[in-house]
Amino acid sequence: MTITPPALSVFETLESEVRSYCRSWPAVFDRAQGSHMYDEDGHTYLDFFAGAGSLNYGHNNPVLKRALIDYIERDGVTHGLDMATTAKRAFLETFQNVILRPRDLPYKVMFPGPTGTNAVESALKLARKVKGRESVVSFTNAFHGMSLGSLAVTGNAFKRAGAGVPLVHGTPMPFDNYFDGQVPDFLWFERLLEDQGSGLNKPAAVIVETVQGEGGINVARAEWLRALQDLCHRQDMLLIVDDIQMGCGRTGAFFSFEEAGIQPDIVTLSKSISGYGLPMSLCLFKPELDVWEPGEHNGTFRGNNPAFVTAAAALNAYWADGQMEKQTLARGEMVERALLAIADENAGAGVSFRGRGLVWGIEFTDKNRATAVCRRAFELGMLLETSGPESEVVKLLPALTISADELDEGLRTLARAVRETA
Amino acid sequence: MTITPPALSVFETLESEVRSYCRSWPAVFDRAQGSHMYDEDGHTYLDFFAGAGSLNYGHNNPVLKRALIDYIERDGVTHGLDMATTAKRAFLETFQNVILRPRDLPYKVMFPGPTGTNAVESALKLARKVKGRESVVSFTNAFHGMSLGSLAVTGNAFKRAGAGVPLVHGTPMPFDNYFDGQVPDFLWFERLLEDQGSGLNKPAAVIVETVQGEGGINVARAEWLRALQDLCHRQDMLLIVDDIQMGCGRTGAFFSFEEAGIQPDIVTLSKSISGYGLPMSLCLFKPELDVWEPGEHNGTFRGNNPAFVTAAAALNAYWADGQMEKQTLARGEMVERALLAIADENAGAGVSFRGRGLVWGIEFTDKNRATAVCRRAFELGMLLETSGPESEVVKLLPALTISADELDEGLRTLARAVRETA
Amino acid sequence: MTITPPALSVFETLESEVRSYCRSWPAVFDRAQGSHMYDEDGHTYLDFFAGAGSLNYGHNNPVLKRALIDYIERDGVTHGLDMATTAKRAFLETFQNVILRPRDLPYKVMFPGPTGTNAVESALKLARKVKGRESVVSFTNAFHGMSLGSLAVTGNAFKRAGAGVPLVHGTPMPFDNYFDGQVPDFLWFERLLEDQGSGLNKPAAVIVETVQGEGGINVARAEWLRALQDLCHRQDMLLIVDDIQMGCGRTGAFFSFEEAGIQPDIVTLSKSISGYGLPMSLCLFKPELDVWEPGEHNGTFRGNNPAFVTAAAALNAYWADGQMEKQTLARGEMVERALLAIADENAGAGVSFRGRGLVWGIEFTDKNRATAVCRRAFELGMLLETSGPESEVVKLLPALTISADELDEGLRTLARAVRETA
Amino acid sequence: MTITPPALSVFETLESEVRSYCRSWPAVFDRAQGSHMYDEDGHTYLDFFAGAGSLNYGHNNPVLKRALIDYIERDGVTHGLDMATTAKRAFLETFQNVILRPRDLPYKVMFPGPTGTNAVESALKLARKVKGRESVVSFTNAFHGMSLGSLAVTGNAFKRAGAGVPLVHGTPMPFDNYFDGQVPDFLWFERLLEDQGSGLNKPAAVIVETVQGEGGINVARAEWLRALQDLCHRQDMLLIVDDIQMGCGRTGAFFSFEEAGIQPDIVTLSKSISGYGLPMSLCLFKPELDVWEPGEHNGTFRGNNPAFVTAAAALNAYWADGQMEKQTLARGEMVERALLAIADENAGAGVSFRGRGLVWGIEFTDKNRATAVCRRAFELGMLLETSGPESEVVKLLPALTISADELDEGLRTLARAVRETA
Repeated sequence: MTITPPALSVFETLESEVRSYCRSWPAVFDRAQGSHMYDEDGHTYLDFFAGAGSLNYGHNNPVLKRALIDYIERDGVTHGLDMATTAKRAFLETFQNVILRPRDLPYKVMFPGPTGTNAVESALKLARKVKGRESVVSFTNAFHGMSLGSLAVTGNAFKRAGAGVPLVHGTPMPFDNYFDGQVPDFLWFERLLEDQGSGLNKPAAVIVETVQGEGGINVARAEWLRALQDLCHRQDMLLIVDDIQMGCGRTGAFFSFEEAGIQPDIVTLSKSISGYGLPMSLCLFKPELDVWEPGEHNGTFRGNNPAFVTAAAALNAYWADGQMEKQTLARGEMVERALLAIADENAGAGVSFRGRGLVWGIEFTDKNRATAVCRRAFELGMLLETSGPESEVVKLLPALTISADELDEGLRTLARAVRETA
Repeated sequence: MTITPPALSVFETLESEVRSYCRSWPAVFDRAQGSHMYDEDGHTYLDFFAGAGSLNYGHNNPVLKRALIDYIERDGVTHGLDMATTAKRAFLETFQNVILRPRDLPYKVMFPGPTGTNAVESALKLARKVKGRESVVSFTNAFHGMSLGSLAVTGNAFKRAGAGVPLVHGTPMPFDNYFDGQVPDFLWFERLLEDQGSGLNKPAAVIVETVQGEGGINVARAEWLRALQDLCHRQDMLLIVDDIQMGCGRTGAFFSFEEAGIQPDIVTLSKSISGYGLPMSLCLFKPELDVWEPGEHNGTFRGNNPAFVTAAAALNAYWADGQMEKQTLARGEMVERALLAIADENAGAGVSFRGRGLVWGIEFTDKNRATAVCRRAFELGMLLETSGPESEVVKLLPALTISADELDEGLRTLARAVRETA
Repeated sequence: MTITPPALSVFETLESEVRSYCRSWPAVFDRAQGSHMYDEDGHTYLDFFAGAGSLNYGHNNPVLKRALIDYIERDGVTHGLDMATTAKRAFLETFQNVILRPRDLPYKVMFPGPTGTNAVESALKLARKVKGRESVVSFTNAFHGMSLGSLAVTGNAFKRAGAGVPLVHGTPMPFDNYFDGQVPDFLWFERLLEDQGSGLNKPAAVIVETVQGEGGINVARAEWLRALQDLCHRQDMLLIVDDIQMGCGRTGAFFSFEEAGIQPDIVTLSKSISGYGLPMSLCLFKPELDVWEPGEHNGTFRGNNPAFVTAAAALNAYWADGQMEKQTLARGEMVERALLAIADENAGAGVSFRGRGLVWGIEFTDKNRATAVCRRAFELGMLLETSGPESEVVKLLPALTISADELDEGLRTLARAVRETA
Repeated sequence: MTITPPALSVFETLESEVRSYCRSWPAVFDRAQGSHMYDEDGHTYLDFFAGAGSLNYGHNNPVLKRALIDYIERDGVTHGLDMATTAKRAFLETFQNVILRPRDLPYKVMFPGPTGTNAVESALKLARKVKGRESVVSFTNAFHGMSLGSLAVTGNAFKRAGAGVPLVHGTPMPFDNYFDGQVPDFLWFERLLEDQGSGLNKPAAVIVETVQGEGGINVARAEWLRALQDLCHRQDMLLIVDDIQMGCGRTGAFFSFEEAGIQPDIVTLSKSISGYGLPMSLCLFKPELDVWEPGEHNGTFRGNNPAFVTAAAALNAYWADGQMEKQTLARGEMVERALLAIADENAGAGVSFRGRGLVWGIEFTDKNRATAVCRRAFELGMLLETSGPESEVVKLLPALTISADELDEGLRTLARAVRETA
């Protein structure tokens, strides 16, 4: 495939230097459907990034699209603040019936503003209010968002430096397997909590991702998550699972923590919850934590009703039975086999991989290799991104609705890109 | 009009106690068009709140609706992170040609995530990075958002208490007319800056709204804004105008600061920028301030392309000539006359009013009166909200596209609600 | 007087660059008695600085010296942590009988460590603990100390910059007469407290000096102090008077706030409390505020027993009757007359003065003049220092025990130094 | 020994509840000499606490006493701010000749105010200024002082809670042997520093005690200290050794870090530096770090000249040759043998001990036992204190000048107290 240099001029002259993905993928995208994006020059790209996990059901999923257009056509309420609307009610009832009840989850639902970082900010506020303490523990290589509260519990030094003020009230602890099994889980964390002379400010809460997507596809084991929940219970800390990227079926089950059998006190959802890539987020919490005063946290776009419509449609279409979960796990096995083959083929070149469901990472000992692989994949018509603190991991995040053929094609392109960057 | 108690059950049982507007307006809204909303029981409401300023062109504006449906129908990119897309290019070119160039504004454009508070967070980060200082000055009764960085420069004590951590690095100064002209403008602020013993941490920036919407419809005079800009220049502080609620034509001109003839260093826009009530926000700044590293601030929904489509359509439809501005000023004069009449009619009852363009506030000496007026207006089929630190001000925020008849009807209903709550 | 360049070598080579007074007064001092210091080259200096207010009874006061030597000779406890000792008991009983009871002051006494900043740190801790709030209000040009808590409520920008971390939880308010009577007292402060949208974090306490010594000899009027106390009572804030420099008789009465007839909730004392220049400090507070847990604040040198001995001796010698207060006020009148004459003599040259008791300041429109006056005074054999944010004020702080002749001599030298720097 | 209930009334009625040691030792002390204290009822106490390490040369050491009285008798300058004085020069020259030069230590000397916490505050300020970063790493169970800056790097939860504001900018790391050798030294700390996604704010400095006195007599191994110094060098962090309690010969050598062969960037000294229990402290640092501006940090009592006199006398008397170090190590071996015997005698009762030089701790599995032992020791006429986060360690801190007989007597009393509290 030959790619003509795209006409990026207005992006280069008018848009801020802060832009990033458009630098890795120098194309002007126009249309998208399912697992494919199309640029204005007629090139097609197989999307293994899926809006950083916001497009679990693919681009412009036809089922949701129908519901969305119908709603817009009939002049359904678009902007609803936190007014009661029929669209919001339909979403709430669907969420309760399809997601919460079958899983015996007792959560109350808060609409904290339509972005992930808003959900995290509201979760942190609530935990601090409930416990009357400021401190929150996060984990190495965590990513929770760019506003000041979320950034303080995010690990990446480059993002943190952007704050312009010292980030305080957060303390990092080692994520699962941070020391390759060399150190017992929670040895450090628990000892600090038990020792009245440790100097750790007693935390209101712990915030964790079950799989760290931005941090390098680091997968927490189920037993580690259960031990973390136990520690939280013993030490009177709330457990917040940030399921923004890993929830909505990315790892198989709807919530990524289901496999571990835990029940977090607070859960954040965003990215794929609307199903169509529309801004929406939720903060879920146990009813006894619902100590908010009316309006104590708010946000102009917390009632993005078109997103409620596609969200309800997605839940009904994909989660009324267990098919989606099964398919994701099956697709995940395809990925695992392909990555094993790639690792075998590149034995000696320092290639390793890990993942769950449809989120996988390939790490290279040569830290620049991951970027090279993604660049080559782009030339081959495929969208792939890196993650990890030094962009040393190639991240696979295809739509859950990807077909077996598309997945196979992408994995073959990946293998080729790895081979050709050796 | 008789209103049957609505079936609010799932809102009451499942949604968090944090919900607020649905308590003032106990109806389940279903459809909306222009300046009217319709509940599921067939009642019609004249909307004088306009999504807290997010619906300057009315609900589901047909021009924008057409463009939006066309875009969705043709599978235009929905979720684009910060990739280059044809929809984003069209927006950028339109914004440049219709808004920036005719006003000789040299701004670079950043998409910081689709909510107002994200725009404010990015503005504060940038100012701190540019100046290498942490402190920011805000004003009494300012409102800038609910995430931790924005909340620290927001005045409302109830909202601030929700933070759960001490809010620092912000210092409030008196907004225009805070002392009814009793004290020279900026006497306190300038003295603190000049006195090396004052104890004020030297600010990186000053953040200001030209009209404080949430704070009680407090209107800054043009000369005050100019003097503030001069002070910022003399004292090496950046001037940030938060135009999230007052921009996009609310006060007449596209930017609310145009009338004063100032050119802020950084401007935030959100609410009505998409035109259709879809989540979108912008952070604008002078090119010499564009010191961001690629990806130093990001956000999953910063490329909400359907919003770019409606935003471009709105700019083309309403801002290619000066009609919208003229009409808003004319409608504003209608409002002013009506409020004058209300004040006259209630002479002796402590009624005052103020405003600009199509944002107005009526204040009552009896602080509970404003809530009573809004409640009565709702019974009369009209959506009106209060603002101010003690909800003591009735806030008028109709769509800019409201017809003269609708406006007249609303003002008459308002007059009746005032009369009937005496 | 001719001054040979002193042998400063070890000071220059070994002592840190942070040293300061030794730069203004390039002499190596050896002995001191009453209001005179003697350098090793045989020069005599009339001391109008008195250890920055630590030597109210003059250098090596013979009455205290006798008690001190007796105590050391008989092997009285020197270092007592916070053990009960006979010396501490004698001090406590004397302080109660001579100072607290005759003034009807109900204070509990805390020994917080022997320096002023330790007393301030303990006062701030206690206020925050009692009120459960972090914020404290201080005043423009306040000086409370160099450790992190005290520095956050100190005004001087140069000192603040030394912190190396952003100084937070303190907000400055205008000290008395900050606007030359142009603005009603407490207009800004009270409005911020009353306005629920002001953005001011509700303060636990207000900390104030009745005369700002380091800040430029700014004298608060008695009615201003009373109004401040009223404001604190109305707004549920504790009133802390930092009497470290102005207490122990500097302004006439033992406590500088007695004249105003107020009763602060918390009072800090240090500098002249030991009487002999030995490190000692006290934190006094109303009994209902004594919510400390045993050992919650401590300090190695809080039981500096030789200081307790000289402190008790000073109280018995100078405060058992009202002579000291009368004499100080009389001496103050002498100073005032002299300064009036200097101002008259320099009419047109921008000379003003202010003070109370035996603390006075002369300010020059030409801000460099004060330093020049002090330098000239040193050449003339007199120790004088500047104060104020730009060292623009000559500060007169003679021992309270200075004789009328010595005072007269010093004032004549001062007049000459002013004259000779015109 | 029978102890009559002492007359504590004025302590109970007038002194604050914050008092602590006087509760453990209900006696009113009057005189003291060498290793003995005498109460007003004629009881004698063998002092194994030595002013919490401030009396390394015993109470009222006759050599220093002579120098002190002579200085006072001849009216030497008592209070000297930071003026050059003959007493300060004598101290500086002695410190240079007796301490710094023979050890090839290039330090500049700062007088930061006469208490330990002032020295720590100045050390932290300087490190932050030099490196331009806010964060400082401290260790579990560290104790550095009670003012806000020092408290933030102190471990004890009870002391920290007294701050009344969240303590930030400090992060605790595991002290040597925190995990009984189970985890490689610095595994966690180094990994956080190397991982750009760890979330640790890059520290300006690390502050450490070589033996944690308040924290439970935790002894760092020489190789651990060397590895810490290496880590600081590799990671561009300053190494601050807080030698306030362990310096001045407590562990044998003058500086406690000499044995490890390291050269910290900054060292704090206080407690025994004056030798006589008089308030004095020093902050030492490498010359290239001396970036202070004149007066950037100050303090009223930083020129406590009587302390300079006794300090110089102590250095000349005890450190001009190596006798003191040898004797301390020999005495330490006596203590070690006695503790071994106590541990043997109580085998099975969970008794362990550790220490260096003349600082030792005995820990009991039964955490209340340590307090019981100290109480019984007091009844037997001996002053002993506990340390550790739960007061679970009996701390032995006799004067370095204790005679072999006195030491033997104390160790026998200790053994008896242990026996009698079984």
